[in-house]
Amino acid sequence: MTTAADPRPAVTVLGLGAMGQALAGAFLKAGHPTTVWNRSPGKGEDLVSLGATRAATPAEAVRAGEVVVVCVLDYAAGDAILDQVTAADLDGRLLVNLTSDTPERAREAAARAAALGVDYLDGAVMVPVPMIGTPDALIFHSGARAAYEKYEGTLKALGGRSAYVGEDHGLAAVYDLSALDFFWTAMHGLVHGFALAATEGVPGAAVAPYMKTLAALLASVVDGTAEDLDAGKFPGDLDNLTVEAANVRHIVRAAEHRGLDATALRGVLTAADRSIGLGHGGDNWASIVEGIRRPA
Amino acid sequence: MTTAADPRPAVTVLGLGAMGQALAGAFLKAGHPTTVWNRSPGKGEDLVSLGATRAATPAEAVRAGEVVVVCVLDYAAGDAILDQVTAADLDGRLLVNLTSDTPERAREAAARAAALGVDYLDGAVMVPVPMIGTPDALIFHSGARAAYEKYEGTLKALGGRSAYVGEDHGLAAVYDLSALDFFWTAMHGLVHGFALAATEGVPGAAVAPYMKTLAALLASVVDGTAEDLDAGKFPGDLDNLTVEAANVRHIVRAAEHRGLDATALRGVLTAADRSIGLGHGGDNWASIVEGIRRPA
Ligand SMILES: NC(=O)c1ccc[n+]([C@@H]2O[C@H](COP(=O)([O-])OP(=O)(O)OC[C@H]3O[C@@H](n4cnc5c(N)ncnc54)[C@H](OP(=O)(O)O)[C@@H]3O)[C@@H](O)[C@H]2O)c1
Ligand SMILES: NC(=O)c1ccc[n+]([C@@H]2O[C@H](COP(=O)([O-])OP(=O)(O)OC[C@H]3O[C@@H](n4cnc5c(N)ncnc54)[C@H](OP(=O)(O)O)[C@@H]3O)[C@@H](O)[C@H]2O)c1
Repeated sequence: MTTAADPRPAVTVLGLGAMGQALAGAFLKAGHPTTVWNRSPGKGEDLVSLGATRAATPAEAVRAGEVVVVCVLDYAAGDAILDQVTAADLDGRLLVNLTSDTPERAREAAARAAALGVDYLDGAVMVPVPMIGTPDALIFHSGARAAYEKYEGTLKALGGRSAYVGEDHGLAAVYDLSALDFFWTAMHGLVHGFALAATEGVPGAAVAPYMKTLAALLASVVDGTAEDLDAGKFPGDLDNLTVEAANVRHIVRAAEHRGLDATALRGVLTAADRSIGLGHGGDNWASIVEGIRRPA
Repeated sequence: MTTAADPRPAVTVLGLGAMGQALAGAFLKAGHPTTVWNRSPGKGEDLVSLGATRAATPAEAVRAGEVVVVCVLDYAAGDAILDQVTAADLDGRLLVNLTSDTPERAREAAARAAALGVDYLDGAVMVPVPMIGTPDALIFHSGARAAYEKYEGTLKALGGRSAYVGEDHGLAAVYDLSALDFFWTAMHGLVHGFALAATEGVPGAAVAPYMKTLAALLASVVDGTAEDLDAGKFPGDLDNLTVEAANVRHIVRAAEHRGLDATALRGVLTAADRSIGLGHGGDNWASIVEGIRRPA
């Protein structure tokens, strides 16, 4: 095993799905001795030809690395792998779980790592596979600050924008889920908008430039929305929820009229109508938070 | 009345809500003689002090302008105004309705304008009030091409990115609703994501930088998503709906566990699960379109 002073400590990647392969590839590229393991055989042949060592078992894989990264479907899958590893195998390693899940699951995993006596960081990958290993790749980490600081250089091989968000092991998941809440909801809206245009014979390529305009507009309203929410004030002088809900209602109606599922957008409308019912009709869009905080 | 050759024909704006005021202000700034009218008195005093003429009735307002812009809450409100105007009042004018509504309503309005014998453009404003009159402001127009071309300079005073999208009067609304389908769904996700972070004591200001990262990511996937949808092919080698749906399920669970309404995101999950049930579990996110096209 390499010493802590080594700028390129040996690493292990457990799980060679699309993301696990990208992580292992980034470690290899950065010059880390890299050991890999995957439940099903056959995955990661490219990594082996680039110099990765394939371990026969999770225990063997764990023993080969100073930093052990897990990235699989969910925490149940991660648990199934760690069930095959002992505290002795993990001794002196830093365990980093980059599988996405809830803050609750992250905190459970931290308790389990504590019981095994192993340093633990819980992380979340915010970017798609092709961005892994680039300066722009964003990965959240939370847990023991000292462990993060010791291996920050190693973890930044995976993404230049690796961010440590706090001691509470659940925080990476809080940041992850909050940001992905926005992202996946938006990604649904994107496909839904294209589907709506397609019902009128308008191809995606024709609408795409405008979708990009609106994505830029989204970026530009993020800070103002955060300020309004943090202050709990929703000044409605430039836009108001009543007009915006009318707009959403038109989209729901147009979509359903064309045989498209509009369940998600109906959910948006219900939250907006609930906020309006609570007296926020003249407030701006961010006041929909009041409807979100008071489920039916 | 000015002649068609006049680069700054007289204009009329009916409706002085937040958007109507911005439109009239942009016309004034561009040097158009501008007449305004609003149902309730008291709105638009600033415009009058900047040189706008206030008409006492819709008919008087319409007669004063060569281009007549309507921008009110919805088409029913627009109809209520046009009920007070005769074909003679409208004779020789171009009527432009910039109220947002469905393609169906736009086509009905076009039929009504045709019955009155007036040239008609149906438009949709895609940007918030502060952007009106800027080079970046995007406004869709559809209807008679000749009328658009004759008054393009005038209409571009409202937004430099005014776009003519086709002869069918419903098309501006198709583009509008498709793009806003994306936008409002995303804006709900943004507030919902902030609300989720707030339940864990993480303020909007802390998450905002990452929301902007994801907004930029959204912009970067628009073209690829459009291509996949136009081709009906959803290659799942870099991401797949099964893992993504697991992700969405975590967010729904985390949000509901914290007492937040997650109806919209549950709708996203239902569509994803339906696509997976149709055999798209190994395909990429855009394949959620199959679930959208087959409502429960
Ligand atoms: N792909 C992306 O763009 C992306 C982006 C951000 C975050 N992520 C996150 O990264 C994680 C992995 O995603 P992925 O795209 O790599 O998924 P994937 O390609 O579907 O791979 C899933 C991995 O989990 C393993 N696995 C599943 N159940 C298991 C079990 N019971 N025991 C052991 N291993 C098991 C699979 O092993 P087998 O090969 O044996 O099935 C495979 O290695 C997820 O949490 C995802 O949310 C992915
Ligand atoms: N604000 C934005 O950022 C924005 C952005 C893009 C598109 N839009 C679209 O622009 C349109 C107008 O929005 P807005 O923000 O200006 O709304 P607003 O500030 O709420 O103003 C609504 C306008 O509609 C009028 N109105 C309502 N019912 C009427 C009726 N029955 N008869 C006559 N007038 C009636 C109101 O007159 P009173 O003053 O008499 O009530 C007022 O002038 C909407 O279609 C909206 O979707 C707005």
